[in-house]
Amino acid sequence: MSTTVLFAARDTRWDIYEPLLRAALDERGLDYRLGTDFEPQEVDYIVYAPDSHLQDFTPYTKLKAVLNLWAGVEGITGNQTLRAPLARMVDDQGLTQGMVEWVTGHVLRHHLGMDSHILNPDHAWSPNAPPLAPERPVTILGLGALGIACGQALAQLGFDVTGWSRTAKSVEGLRCLNGPEGLSDALTGAQIVVLLLPDTPHTQNILDAAAMAKLETGAAVINPGRGPLIDDEALLAALDSGQISHATLDVFRIEPLPEDHPFWAHPGITVTPHIASETRPATAAQVVADNIARGENGAPFLHLVDRAAGY
Amino acid sequence: MSTTVLFAARDTRWDIYEPLLRAALDERGLDYRLGTDFEPQEVDYIVYAPDSHLQDFTPYTKLKAVLNLWAGVEGITGNQTLRAPLARMVDDQGLTQGMVEWVTGHVLRHHLGMDSHILNPDHAWSPNAPPLAPERPVTILGLGALGIACGQALAQLGFDVTGWSRTAKSVEGLRCLNGPEGLSDALTGAQIVVLLLPDTPHTQNILDAAAMAKLETGAAVINPGRGPLIDDEALLAALDSGQISHATLDVFRIEPLPEDHPFWAHPGITVTPHIASETRPATAAQVVADNIARGENGAPFLHLVDRAAGY
Repeated sequence: MSTTVLFAARDTRWDIYEPLLRAALDERGLDYRLGTDFEPQEVDYIVYAPDSHLQDFTPYTKLKAVLNLWAGVEGITGNQTLRAPLARMVDDQGLTQGMVEWVTGHVLRHHLGMDSHILNPDHAWSPNAPPLAPERPVTILGLGALGIACGQALAQLGFDVTGWSRTAKSVEGLRCLNGPEGLSDALTGAQIVVLLLPDTPHTQNILDAAAMAKLETGAAVINPGRGPLIDDEALLAALDSGQISHATLDVFRIEPLPEDHPFWAHPGITVTPHIASETRPATAAQVVADNIARGENGAPFLHLVDRAAGY
Repeated sequence: MSTTVLFAARDTRWDIYEPLLRAALDERGLDYRLGTDFEPQEVDYIVYAPDSHLQDFTPYTKLKAVLNLWAGVEGITGNQTLRAPLARMVDDQGLTQGMVEWVTGHVLRHHLGMDSHILNPDHAWSPNAPPLAPERPVTILGLGALGIACGQALAQLGFDVTGWSRTAKSVEGLRCLNGPEGLSDALTGAQIVVLLLPDTPHTQNILDAAAMAKLETGAAVINPGRGPLIDDEALLAALDSGQISHATLDVFRIEPLPEDHPFWAHPGITVTPHIASETRPATAAQVVADNIARGENGAPFLHLVDRAAGY
C-alpha cells in the first residue's frame, strides 16, 4: 500500500521541492503519493514549514510524522494539535554547511578587523596585524548540529573555542561547558560570542546586560540563531558604553527588521537579512526522504524534537 | 668554539628579537655570540631583514648562511655580493597561520557578499543566500608554504580549490595545475583568485588583462602576495568594465600606497596595509634558531632559496 506525503509550505516552495522530493523518494524505492492536497485522514507524513497555512493537525488522524523543513521549530513545538513525532531539519550538506561559512566568515571579519579597511574614508595606512586565532577566545552558545559544526570549523582554523550547552556535552576540539555556572565561565573573557541556541523560554534574553558584562571589553556579538536570544535594549546600551564593540545580527524578534528599528542606523550593528543559512532544497529533500524511508521500514526517525524541552 | 650571529634588521626589531633569539638559541644548547655589531670576518650567521642597512655582504668572508626574517626574498636574491646560502622565513605557527586567517576571511567575505550588508545605507532587506562553498571555484596562484596552507584551509571549508604553480606539485585536497597551459586552465571560470606567488621576473604582471579576461565575469581578486603580480592599469580597467567585481589588495608596488594612487578611491578596491601576514617574532626566533642549530650540527639548512629561480 502506498504512503501518502503531504507537502505543506508556502506555494512557491512546491515547484522547487516537488521534483527533488519525487527523485529522492523514487531513489529509495518507496511506493508513495506526494501532493499539496489530500484528505487529512489519508496522510501519513507531512513535509512542513511553520509558515504554512496548516496549523491544525487534529484531522490528520493517521499521521506518522511531521518532517520540518527548517532547523528552527519554535513555530510548531507549542502546537497542542500535533501529537505525531516531529523531526527538525538537520541538513549537513546544505543548512549546516551554509551556517559554517557564514559564522566562520563573520568571526574572521571581526577577528581581522576588516571593517576598518572596508570603510576607510581617510585612507589610513596603519599596518598593525591582529593577534593570531589561538589568542582569540571565541564562545559559542548552543551545541546542536550547527553549534558543533561551527565550533569545530573555528577550532580547525586555530581559534580558542569554548562551547556551552544546557546539558553536558563533549565535542572534540572544543572546551565544553554546561549549565548556569558553565554559562558564566563560557562568557567570561570571551572576545567573540556566537549565538546558536534554539528559541525556548529558557534561552530568551540569555544575552542580557549581566551576560554582556562578563565578556571582554570590546567583544563582538554574532547572532545567527534566533532574535529573542538577545535583550535588544541591553545590547544597544552595551554598544554605546563600548562593552560591546560590534554586533552582527542575522535574526530579529520581528522580520524583516522594521525600517524604524534602531539596529538599522546604529554604527556598531551589521544587519544581515536572515541569510546565515537556509534549508537547501536539493539536500533537504534527501533528508526528508531518508526519514520517510526509515518510518516505512520500521526504523526510528532521525532528528526528533523533544517537545517538552522545546527543541 | 662559539658561533657568531649578527642581527641585521631595523633597530626597533632588535629589542623585540634579542630576548627571543637568546632563549631559542639557549634552548638548543648552542655556544654563541649574538649582537648587532661584529667584525664582518667573524660572523657565521646573519639574521636578516631586507630593509637592513647591510647590503654589501663582501666583507663577511666566513658566512655560513643568511637567515631571512621575511617570507619574501625579492629584496635580496639579486644581491651579487651574497655567496652564502640564503633561507627564507617559513613560520607555520606565525606567518603561515596569519596568512591562512587573512585569506580565508577575505575569501569568505567575497563569497558571502558581506560588503553589501556592512555598507547598506538604504537598509535593504534582501534575503538571498549565496551559493555554498562547493559551488564556488577559487584559484590560488602559488603553491609555496603559504599557498598550500591557504588552499587546504579553503578546501577544508568546502571550497572548490584549484592551485597553480610554475613546476608540477601535488597537494591533497586541491586540483593542482602547472606551467603556462595550466595557468590558463586555472584562471578559466575562477570566481575568486588569490595571488600567493613570489615576485620574480616571471611572475610580474601575471594577472594582466588577458589573465583577468579568463576569470568568470564579476570575479574577485585577492592579493596578499606581492604588488607587481598585478598589472594595476589592467585591474582598474577590468573593475570599470565589470569583469572584476572587487579587488582586495594587501601589497603594492609602492608601500605605503601613495595617497594619490587611484586604488584608494576606487569603490571596487579594498586596501589593507600589508597586514595579511607578518613574521611573528616568538615563532620566527624558533625557526631561525633551528636553522643555526642545523648548520652547527652539519645538517642541511631548511627553506633554502633557489636564487636562480628567484624564490
